[in-house]
Amino acid sequence: MLSDALHNCRFLKAARCEPTDTTPVWIMRQAGRYLPEYMAVRSKVTFIELCQSPELAAEVTLSAQRVLGVDAAILFADLLPMLVPMGIDLEYAKGEGPVIHNPIQSAGDIDRIRELEELGSLQFVFDAVKKIRRELPGDIPLLGFAGAPFTLASYAIEGGGSKNYISTKTLMYTDEGAWKTLMQRLARSLVRYINAQIDAGCQAIQLFDSWAGCLSPDDYRRYVLPYTKQVVAGVRAGTPVINFLTGNPALLPLLREAGGQVMGLDWRVNLADGWKTVGYDVGVQGNLDPVSLMADLPTLKLRTKAVLDAAGGRPGHIFNLGHGVFPEVPPENVKALVNMVHELGQRV
Amino acid sequence: MLSDALHNCRFLKAARCEPTDTTPVWIMRQAGRYLPEYMAVRSKVTFIELCQSPELAAEVTLSAQRVLGVDAAILFADLLPMLVPMGIDLEYAKGEGPVIHNPIQSAGDIDRIRELEELGSLQFVFDAVKKIRRELPGDIPLLGFAGAPFTLASYAIEGGGSKNYISTKTLMYTDEGAWKTLMQRLARSLVRYINAQIDAGCQAIQLFDSWAGCLSPDDYRRYVLPYTKQVVAGVRAGTPVINFLTGNPALLPLLREAGGQVMGLDWRVNLADGWKTVGYDVGVQGNLDPVSLMADLPTLKLRTKAVLDAAGGRPGHIFNLGHGVFPEVPPENVKALVNMVHELGQRV
Repeated sequence: MLSDALHNCRFLKAARCEPTDTTPVWIMRQAGRYLPEYMAVRSKVTFIELCQSPELAAEVTLSAQRVLGVDAAILFADLLPMLVPMGIDLEYAKGEGPVIHNPIQSAGDIDRIRELEELGSLQFVFDAVKKIRRELPGDIPLLGFAGAPFTLASYAIEGGGSKNYISTKTLMYTDEGAWKTLMQRLARSLVRYINAQIDAGCQAIQLFDSWAGCLSPDDYRRYVLPYTKQVVAGVRAGTPVINFLTGNPALLPLLREAGGQVMGLDWRVNLADGWKTVGYDVGVQGNLDPVSLMADLPTLKLRTKAVLDAAGGRPGHIFNLGHGVFPEVPPENVKALVNMVHELGQRV
Repeated sequence: MLSDALHNCRFLKAARCEPTDTTPVWIMRQAGRYLPEYMAVRSKVTFIELCQSPELAAEVTLSAQRVLGVDAAILFADLLPMLVPMGIDLEYAKGEGPVIHNPIQSAGDIDRIRELEELGSLQFVFDAVKKIRRELPGDIPLLGFAGAPFTLASYAIEGGGSKNYISTKTLMYTDEGAWKTLMQRLARSLVRYINAQIDAGCQAIQLFDSWAGCLSPDDYRRYVLPYTKQVVAGVRAGTPVINFLTGNPALLPLLREAGGQVMGLDWRVNLADGWKTVGYDVGVQGNLDPVSLMADLPTLKLRTKAVLDAAGGRPGHIFNLGHGVFPEVPPENVKALVNMVHELGQRV
């Protein structure tokens, strides 16, 4: 049961498409390298040490919310550690990002991917959630998150970042049975992992399908939609899901079909068009081009206003960037953005 | 004046939305590293030496058309050499792709970008066109091509490939006057460069806006559309332009507004939806996901048929991939694809 303060907070009201006093805002990757408070912690440990320490993960999560004055905190975590107990050998190589030493290279390799049943080895995530929830202001919701099945599958197959997803798509096209097995294991694992985040204290969940934009609508419908749908449907009832996909506005009708209370839009689509496409019975989150934060403040303000104008004051808009904030961004611009949204988004 | 054989060839008829006996097909980057005939030439010289040798450029252009049996040849060339006489210091570093040693780092740097007036230093391009046109079968058109203004501007500013186009967009957002100057110089230069390709013997032109997919529709409309439109409008009348943009289906209505007889679609959109969006009074080119070529032939055939079915036999479809062919692709699959299109695309 939510407290009244949480139930009636801006963010959760907007996620239910209820009117709010002003537009709620948070920033993807708000606890990130652009922020001195984050770097003060991060400089002492590696990225994965930070993820695995409930104390430090809580500290960077809480300080970002406090310093920016945003309407939600988001758990500091990474998409990939949940793959480790599933049988993926993951390393965060210095300055290189995540590397998977045993990527799935053939259909046979899928046999060694185990469905996540015991969550014990991910306890550090749930401990961080508990600690953050205890210390967060009573009217600020905590978002949990996870990668969507396609994004996790392509990491596991490509072994890291990819330009063209050749290995992933080749497996998908040539062995649909193996692909289905992998996606089902991921989907069932995700449901457990997400619900454990909710049990530990998250009030909403964002699914990140960061890489699904490389797919055609027909491929998304056939190879991805059933599994993302399964994940969204499996999330504990009453907890809103923000379903976020980047890189292909033509997938928006299918993203909507996959489910969720709020559709996360990247900046490649005009927000008014995007909302019309997904339907006004769901909320939308987004969608300022993150590079806008490199501009002078008057330009940033004009661009922020354009996004708010596209939302037209309709209940159900959560302001955000269309993608994570870059390390190069001046932190004072992010703070200014949050204030601009709260000021310009006021309902008269 | 075109010969009757050229005027009535499949490709140019389709570009005019006239009926053809079967669907014409060519493959972006058809003279590329996947092809042994190309590698036989390429292994003896560097990439830029190949571009700058009319004999070798002609050889790889012609052999790809002949070996594949495609309905058009495309000039082997690169987007960037035209920037060199404009003041850009370009190097093709071994194994690294193009590097620009003096990228535009501030508005002031734009002063040293000269409009292309004398085309003499690009004579190797026009010599290649002449040679190819002389040797190409009389019913096979030769496509010339160029980068669209945004793609060239972002190369010149980022100094090479980019993930987030931070420098390009920052300049665009913060100094619109400087941006306009740069884009106008590029647009006027492109018109001269493209028309010189036509004068030398090209029957159609493809504009590549390979990077414009990183833009929101509002930004494309304001910062890019006027200049791409200026280029298309400046192309010698009677020569069809294929206007190709990759990475953002939400830009298709604006791509159409920018002009051209054929809109080039990447694979992120269903071809039927894309054609409806741009309007049936223009042709469309595309749009098989290039990774399809990694699949077994029965799967490739199903996927090829799906693209042809989406076109529905409507006159004006030119079959292609949604992006360039990868080096990893088996050449026999590309040949099989061309045959499949010709067979499945037959009008009854």
